[in-house]
Amino acid sequence: MGFSADKKARIGILGASGYTGADLVRLIHRHPAMEIVLMTAERKAGQPIDSVFPHLAGLGLPDMIKVSEVEWPAVELDGMFCALPHATSQEVIQGMMHATDHSLLDELIIESDSDRSSQIRGNIKIVDLSADFRLRDAKTYTEWYGRDHQATNIQSRAVYGLTEMYREQIASAKLVACPGCYPTAALLALMPLLSAGVITSEDIIIDAKSGVTGAGRSLKEANLFSEVSDAMHPYGVANHRHMPEIEQELSLASGEPVRISFTPHLVPMNRGELETIYVKLAGDQSAADIRAAWQDAFAYEPFIRILSEGLAPATRMVRGSNQCVLNVWDDRQSGRAIIVAAIDNLVKGSSGQALQNMNLMLGLPEVLGLEQIAMFP
Amino acid sequence: MGFSADKKARIGILGASGYTGADLVRLIHRHPAMEIVLMTAERKAGQPIDSVFPHLAGLGLPDMIKVSEVEWPAVELDGMFCALPHATSQEVIQGMMHATDHSLLDELIIESDSDRSSQIRGNIKIVDLSADFRLRDAKTYTEWYGRDHQATNIQSRAVYGLTEMYREQIASAKLVACPGCYPTAALLALMPLLSAGVITSEDIIIDAKSGVTGAGRSLKEANLFSEVSDAMHPYGVANHRHMPEIEQELSLASGEPVRISFTPHLVPMNRGELETIYVKLAGDQSAADIRAAWQDAFAYEPFIRILSEGLAPATRMVRGSNQCVLNVWDDRQSGRAIIVAAIDNLVKGSSGQALQNMNLMLGLPEVLGLEQIAMFP
Amino acid sequence: MGFSADKKARIGILGASGYTGADLVRLIHRHPAMEIVLMTAERKAGQPIDSVFPHLAGLGLPDMIKVSEVEWPAVELDGMFCALPHATSQEVIQGMMHATDHSLLDELIIESDSDRSSQIRGNIKIVDLSADFRLRDAKTYTEWYGRDHQATNIQSRAVYGLTEMYREQIASAKLVACPGCYPTAALLALMPLLSAGVITSEDIIIDAKSGVTGAGRSLKEANLFSEVSDAMHPYGVANHRHMPEIEQELSLASGEPVRISFTPHLVPMNRGELETIYVKLAGDQSAADIRAAWQDAFAYEPFIRILSEGLAPATRMVRGSNQCVLNVWDDRQSGRAIIVAAIDNLVKGSSGQALQNMNLMLGLPEVLGLEQIAMFP
Amino acid sequence: MGFSADKKARIGILGASGYTGADLVRLIHRHPAMEIVLMTAERKAGQPIDSVFPHLAGLGLPDMIKVSEVEWPAVELDGMFCALPHATSQEVIQGMMHATDHSLLDELIIESDSDRSSQIRGNIKIVDLSADFRLRDAKTYTEWYGRDHQATNIQSRAVYGLTEMYREQIASAKLVACPGCYPTAALLALMPLLSAGVITSEDIIIDAKSGVTGAGRSLKEANLFSEVSDAMHPYGVANHRHMPEIEQELSLASGEPVRISFTPHLVPMNRGELETIYVKLAGDQSAADIRAAWQDAFAYEPFIRILSEGLAPATRMVRGSNQCVLNVWDDRQSGRAIIVAAIDNLVKGSSGQALQNMNLMLGLPEVLGLEQIAMFP
Repeated sequence: MGFSADKKARIGILGASGYTGADLVRLIHRHPAMEIVLMTAERKAGQPIDSVFPHLAGLGLPDMIKVSEVEWPAVELDGMFCALPHATSQEVIQGMMHATDHSLLDELIIESDSDRSSQIRGNIKIVDLSADFRLRDAKTYTEWYGRDHQATNIQSRAVYGLTEMYREQIASAKLVACPGCYPTAALLALMPLLSAGVITSEDIIIDAKSGVTGAGRSLKEANLFSEVSDAMHPYGVANHRHMPEIEQELSLASGEPVRISFTPHLVPMNRGELETIYVKLAGDQSAADIRAAWQDAFAYEPFIRILSEGLAPATRMVRGSNQCVLNVWDDRQSGRAIIVAAIDNLVKGSSGQALQNMNLMLGLPEVLGLEQIAMFP
Repeated sequence: MGFSADKKARIGILGASGYTGADLVRLIHRHPAMEIVLMTAERKAGQPIDSVFPHLAGLGLPDMIKVSEVEWPAVELDGMFCALPHATSQEVIQGMMHATDHSLLDELIIESDSDRSSQIRGNIKIVDLSADFRLRDAKTYTEWYGRDHQATNIQSRAVYGLTEMYREQIASAKLVACPGCYPTAALLALMPLLSAGVITSEDIIIDAKSGVTGAGRSLKEANLFSEVSDAMHPYGVANHRHMPEIEQELSLASGEPVRISFTPHLVPMNRGELETIYVKLAGDQSAADIRAAWQDAFAYEPFIRILSEGLAPATRMVRGSNQCVLNVWDDRQSGRAIIVAAIDNLVKGSSGQALQNMNLMLGLPEVLGLEQIAMFP
Repeated sequence: MGFSADKKARIGILGASGYTGADLVRLIHRHPAMEIVLMTAERKAGQPIDSVFPHLAGLGLPDMIKVSEVEWPAVELDGMFCALPHATSQEVIQGMMHATDHSLLDELIIESDSDRSSQIRGNIKIVDLSADFRLRDAKTYTEWYGRDHQATNIQSRAVYGLTEMYREQIASAKLVACPGCYPTAALLALMPLLSAGVITSEDIIIDAKSGVTGAGRSLKEANLFSEVSDAMHPYGVANHRHMPEIEQELSLASGEPVRISFTPHLVPMNRGELETIYVKLAGDQSAADIRAAWQDAFAYEPFIRILSEGLAPATRMVRGSNQCVLNVWDDRQSGRAIIVAAIDNLVKGSSGQALQNMNLMLGLPEVLGLEQIAMFP
Repeated sequence: MGFSADKKARIGILGASGYTGADLVRLIHRHPAMEIVLMTAERKAGQPIDSVFPHLAGLGLPDMIKVSEVEWPAVELDGMFCALPHATSQEVIQGMMHATDHSLLDELIIESDSDRSSQIRGNIKIVDLSADFRLRDAKTYTEWYGRDHQATNIQSRAVYGLTEMYREQIASAKLVACPGCYPTAALLALMPLLSAGVITSEDIIIDAKSGVTGAGRSLKEANLFSEVSDAMHPYGVANHRHMPEIEQELSLASGEPVRISFTPHLVPMNRGELETIYVKLAGDQSAADIRAAWQDAFAYEPFIRILSEGLAPATRMVRGSNQCVLNVWDDRQSGRAIIVAAIDNLVKGSSGQALQNMNLMLGLPEVLGLEQIAMFP
């Protein structure tokens, strides 16, 4: 493809009026090889982005239009971020594929149709930030989302976008399903350990804490300042939709079905996600072995940082950046360890990882647009 | 004793210039049968309380003096709250006992000295808010606090001040050691369950979150607004001093040595403490059995509230009040349950429970001065 | 009337599901001579108060009903707090008056109807917390609220409920219109100064800052945590509805029409209101004369506190309490002074002052239920 | 000089362990033509930067050393940011100049010494972020800082670093004194108006609100989280050290001595500064004329943004960015206007403007390293 500062990839953001959309703009704005040529928003269609996000004024961005107004082939996108609500996303992506005669559709067609030339097929790279394509099993989707998936064929072609774990598949994927923010931190911490057999797959307990942006910009009493400020509480106890997604990937890593305990909490901060994970060590393994397994897995990772012993991961270390920081302690209960992981839920937990994946899909260096340091204080 | 609005108990607060001291004043100010006649502070000696806490002006409180300036018998205290730093507390209390010829000293003296008349002995009721008298075992104290206890005889006479669990001993005690804020929430949730055999004593995991007042008013970079705000992190992982205190009481409740996992976190809020506790159920017990055990234990407790099913405890429910709110869920991992407890760390976790204990020790209704509703928003 | 702990005044709260309603409950709960016997809420009708405010559980409060479901004479209220939205309030109060054959209606009736016996007339004391009865001039109301007042006769009988300024009228009033939170702080600071001629009535500039509860509990994007937190901004610049109310009372105090500059700001805190007021001194007056005028006006006021010289008023000094703290400085520009006033917008700025007024109207000591100290931290 | 990605300017940061130092690193890290080769810190000397700022790990930065350990000529700096405390700064800069035989010293030497070759003189460009060189008049310095200036000769050569107002002098300066955060916002808003005669120089009232990072990282009780959170208050009323600096520049702009009212407030947010400025219009000018004057002055400014009518500046619009946003309203008092300006106190109010100036001094495009969008939420 060969995108560069001279020939920038043409990027669309569907659902630009949410916090995830805003953070995509923030990141892509400094990306040397991408330009945003399409932004959609339903209720705010016809308006410039700074009518909903005044801090994004003056950037030369296109006005937002409705998804239904997009002229699909004509817009000539190279990459598309889909930051739409759950359920909507699958419909829009499927519609776009048909409208652009998308090459992924080939994979869904009987071999006999071999004379179709892929060169002339649509080839927009899609990164979906919703939950729609994360669950590999249609039944699990139905169980947790209370409705049948409307695009199961496409779902089966989606690649799970946890970059550090599925880098090769992502690089050649046409549709990537970005993980939820909670799964991102949990899986980065745990998958290498299960793969290496350092911990057991039983009794994994994930106590997660998130900033309020994780709830999006929708109008709910529970997200009003006066409800959240100077306070905290858990929610979705034993019942949060990110749970099956975590279990799905941990099961793949361990080779056997994994069930977890998972409790998310709402914390009065804008950004940031911290997970404290309680695990059982396999055999006579110790925290040092966990550290070693991480070092093996992440030695060359630009966005994973294993902190020096005893230094506690803190959300302020990653605010606004695509970093994930990790550490581990031997527990006071023998045979146990305590793992702590922190990310920015809007960056590595959402828009940042989405951009990291898009870079790979477009053949660009993975870190482009993601080099900013955390903002502290 | 017979204290009342007409004959108020004379109360002293040692260490009045910290947040705990301020909250004691806030609560006792509306107590119908107590008056504050003594307040101490070392660096601020000679000043009125509003020089350190402007919101406490105009209440007719005595100026703060140094502990060394207290004229012990003459001050004629009925009750004394000791909110001094660890290690200092034991020395000051021991000194006061000798200065007042305190009746608790009798219990330390050979029977032969039987002609001493207890009627004329000093009898100040003492509630200590420091950690000095919480650990029943001197060796454990030395291990966790890095020094030998200087008043082991007195220590052995102290009663652990978790009101709901040790009400009778507290009512007749001369010295009560108030639990730490973390232990209070954890023990209220867990002791009835271990006593009733509803949960196992193994694999108890306590993930605790606290407001910043828990760190006191001391000058540490880590407690500056710009370090804490809009962020969160764990601290003291696998190594916090409240751990042995929790284990001590859980062991007593279960009848066998208990080891726990415990991780405290700092949350950007002033007050509030939330603990998410992951437990294993005994036999075929379920969350419903936990609920039943709590109902048995707490049926008539004025300050314990078991929430209706599914309603998550939140710190905003108890801000400024002496309440503890509890709930429980069956976990997704079978045989497990998730317990959540919330208190205000400065009230039920410190000053409020101290006052609750003092009420008992002075023969007053337990709830006096503690009737305020949580302040929300 | 003679209300007491033995014969409590029967109190109704219309509009109990908002923050103002919740704070009324918090305050009245500890009031020795009032009991809440009626609570209304429209959307939440039929539910207990803890379904909207979990921290208010277990207080023995009546379930919320719709205003239309109130059986007016039968409920036998002694006092009614009306915390309804603007415009709704006037209709509901007028309706109640007719339904109870309220004695205030007498004052609206031609003398000829002299045989009506006031003894048997309804006599519920009404404190309205909305803006409906604050403006003495119907045209001004229409101008600022964009609609004609629907109960102008009643409006003319309402007393402006700034307790310290209109205590006597309030004590004998049947309907009191509680001031807005911004006017309360501004008027307490300025009215005595204009009355005493210490400052000029020109060039008064009020820069006001409020916590987010001032915006109520309604669902607006602008009040979401992630919009407000870690940020601040002005709103309603040169155009806020509290402006005519401030001007109305300042004009009365000064005896000539006053126009002010007024800019409110939203600050990321739950409660608290701080006003920095820039004034011109009359003649050769100085900050010391302002201080003297306040001392004259407020010498015996239980809720007004003039801070010692140089100590800056802070919202944390009054959080949760009915206090107003004041101070003044000579400005660097000669002939000018800088005044700072702080209150809790929900207490002295709303529910607390409402209760203060109701105490007066029911012949009770003014401070009952309002003795709590500010909660800091 | 010709710095570029291939030949980066060698940059030193003196006083790297404060918040200003950290933000300089954040900005310069993405600067294409600068590299940090020197960092100093006194108490933390010998340590890597991530020992004080864990979020700055892994950037290949030099360890911090003491100022006294810097080998001045050998380190071969091209530019130096001096983020030292007041009073220290002047000593260190003077010392460095002598140690490097700095060319600015030439300007202080009698002409006779004409054979000195400037080519071989030291030529480090210095941007000082302290208050040491901001006041043009030594007496004013002594009056406000309570001590005589120790480097008055150098002081007289310093250029006041308000970029938009003194761009040309800055470009050719050897020593630039960066304005304080409060002066930056006030002067950007007001200087063009005084120069153009749109407002009068009398009765200017500046009500300023700042995030807590403005107080730096020093240990003061007043900056503890629990003191500041959920609260606000003014400080330094009528007496803040930024006042003479503002007056100095406003007097230059208006051509006559200006005295202002200025009151700063502490707001519970990390970053951000908002100033609400009350001015008198000259003649029959209006807010529209203020807007026009700004448009004239700032038409091509990359970092000044005049908001569309009615849109209130908010700190969230500029968080983390070098932008200043402005707006103006006609006041309700005729002949008056209300101006609002917002900046990030650490960026445009400190480190960002410092970098903007350094870019100019080194002949680089002014915006390099400063292109980041504000981070919201």
